[in-house]
Amino acid sequence: MPASSVAAYAAPSPGAPLEPTTIERRPLRTNDVAIAIHYCGVCHSDVHQVHGDWGDGTFPMVPGHEITGIVTDIGSEVSKHAIGDRVGVGVIVDSCRDCDQCAQNREQYCPHSVETYAAIDPHDGEPTRGGYSTHIVTDEHFVLRIPDAVPLDQAAPLLCAGITTYSPLKHWNAGPGKKVAVLGLGGLGHLAVKIARAMGAEVTVLSRSLRKEDDGRNLGAGHFHATDDPATFEQLAGTFDLIVCTVSTRLDVDAYLSMLAHGGTMVYLGITDEPLDVSVFSLLRDRRSLAGSQIGGMAETQEMLDFCAEHGIGADIEVIDAAKINEAFERVRHGDVRYRFVIDASTF
Amino acid sequence: MPASSVAAYAAPSPGAPLEPTTIERRPLRTNDVAIAIHYCGVCHSDVHQVHGDWGDGTFPMVPGHEITGIVTDIGSEVSKHAIGDRVGVGVIVDSCRDCDQCAQNREQYCPHSVETYAAIDPHDGEPTRGGYSTHIVTDEHFVLRIPDAVPLDQAAPLLCAGITTYSPLKHWNAGPGKKVAVLGLGGLGHLAVKIARAMGAEVTVLSRSLRKEDDGRNLGAGHFHATDDPATFEQLAGTFDLIVCTVSTRLDVDAYLSMLAHGGTMVYLGITDEPLDVSVFSLLRDRRSLAGSQIGGMAETQEMLDFCAEHGIGADIEVIDAAKINEAFERVRHGDVRYRFVIDASTF
Repeated sequence: MPASSVAAYAAPSPGAPLEPTTIERRPLRTNDVAIAIHYCGVCHSDVHQVHGDWGDGTFPMVPGHEITGIVTDIGSEVSKHAIGDRVGVGVIVDSCRDCDQCAQNREQYCPHSVETYAAIDPHDGEPTRGGYSTHIVTDEHFVLRIPDAVPLDQAAPLLCAGITTYSPLKHWNAGPGKKVAVLGLGGLGHLAVKIARAMGAEVTVLSRSLRKEDDGRNLGAGHFHATDDPATFEQLAGTFDLIVCTVSTRLDVDAYLSMLAHGGTMVYLGITDEPLDVSVFSLLRDRRSLAGSQIGGMAETQEMLDFCAEHGIGADIEVIDAAKINEAFERVRHGDVRYRFVIDASTF
Repeated sequence: MPASSVAAYAAPSPGAPLEPTTIERRPLRTNDVAIAIHYCGVCHSDVHQVHGDWGDGTFPMVPGHEITGIVTDIGSEVSKHAIGDRVGVGVIVDSCRDCDQCAQNREQYCPHSVETYAAIDPHDGEPTRGGYSTHIVTDEHFVLRIPDAVPLDQAAPLLCAGITTYSPLKHWNAGPGKKVAVLGLGGLGHLAVKIARAMGAEVTVLSRSLRKEDDGRNLGAGHFHATDDPATFEQLAGTFDLIVCTVSTRLDVDAYLSMLAHGGTMVYLGITDEPLDVSVFSLLRDRRSLAGSQIGGMAETQEMLDFCAEHGIGADIEVIDAAKINEAFERVRHGDVRYRFVIDASTF
């Protein structure tokens, strides 16, 4: 496939509304897969990136790293994928393949990993452009198989929100006999509940209010508590083996640590700019840990997709036309989505 | 044994110098062991407690929770110890024996654990009094065997500094192939180096300056770096599987976290009043953890003593007469001890 012009939505400058545009996709390299995008999820980080909240970024910016579609062409040395395959692309599209991290299938921690958008492709020096578009060209190593059991629209958010929650749940042994709290019931949180439940853990949702309690229980949570209610912290003191923190607002970390059982871990998945304040006593008492986790490697992402297929897990989504992106961004900002917007790429 | 008056050193009020006094030791309960104290270590926390740095405390205060000596009498139901045995008492002298923590041999995390001094004995409502004294009476469950291979004076600091470092080193799998950094080369740090080395780990000391480098290497460290030198942090970025933090001063936690390898843990053993400032990015990057750990349970403390005997580990000590306690406290405050003062109890 030669280079081609394709439709996309881009933010021309930091904070500006997204608007229709045309971008170039590179000619196929030998290991590349060309994908006709069917769906792309709207991740909260898209909103942050477009707003320039995290500093750098290249503009015009085409966001989107929860991409699913169908293979339309392959490079001469591609062996993992074939034309017609159902595939996905997540948060990264390249890494060095040579470091310890890459050797251990942890490409996401490779110091040279390349994000799907707003980064620079080291091969051609061009900015990477994401899934708010009709097509994408990606090295096959970073292209995942989407199992038939998961519809492409529901699968899209698994590529970021799904793996971001699956990886720590698996790493910290969520499973039978374990009590897991999911802090925040949004795009990440609703998948964390489904996945932790499917792993066999006893799941509690900690949400600001009880407004989403019915949803939480339908998703698989056995318990639901409001963090606006101080009694929650007393009642649940010393309870959880694992708290996965999917919110990116400033928290009273010590209060959450107090809900951990002996040896428990609170793991941050969301990014906050402000430093966390942590008392040493909170950590010393009951040998508690505060940790962080970042998406997952390629092998683990495939494992997560297969796990979701086996357990009938997809994201709860609201499919939108491309023209509604800016409105969707506003609603994401206000937490007004249950639980992920997914753009229908046929409307770009 | 009936109640008896014994010699001791006590601080009459917060911050006052310690002075000779006489205290009562309780009559033997059925499970009690009476111990003629031979040595008692001077822990930095003794200095804090006497100074009232940690708030509460009962005065007059007899500090000391690194106690070794010989059994002189036993209660009618004592089965673990016999008259003439070499024994030790550490940081706690009681717990509920009924909770999950106690059932799991983690008495130190029991919500009703009773510290060796400056606490209240729930059985008689009396303040507990520590090892700066000639005798102590302690429930046999909290009395440890001191193996013959470890001299009683060198064994004393193992009861607090030893177990405080052994427990996290074991929990986080210090051993062959693991890179362990010991932050701070003092009472805890020098034992952490010896123990981590004996476990088979590759040990690095991180100390403010290179002043103690020869000591560090003699203790078993393969590497020694000054934290006053910014190059240390660059050079050691991404290196350690475990950092045991034995200092209780405020640190740039993010800078230390950056020296952790993938999945590494920095564990606090020392107490600081001020909250730690931690960036979420430091945790997310390479799935790092910040944790805390507190002494050890009774079974683990015995295991540590046996481990030390097997590996020829005792504390590096400076034995002092009781009359030198206040001077020793001043020197502890200034870090001027290599590496633990131990009081000769025959001088009380």
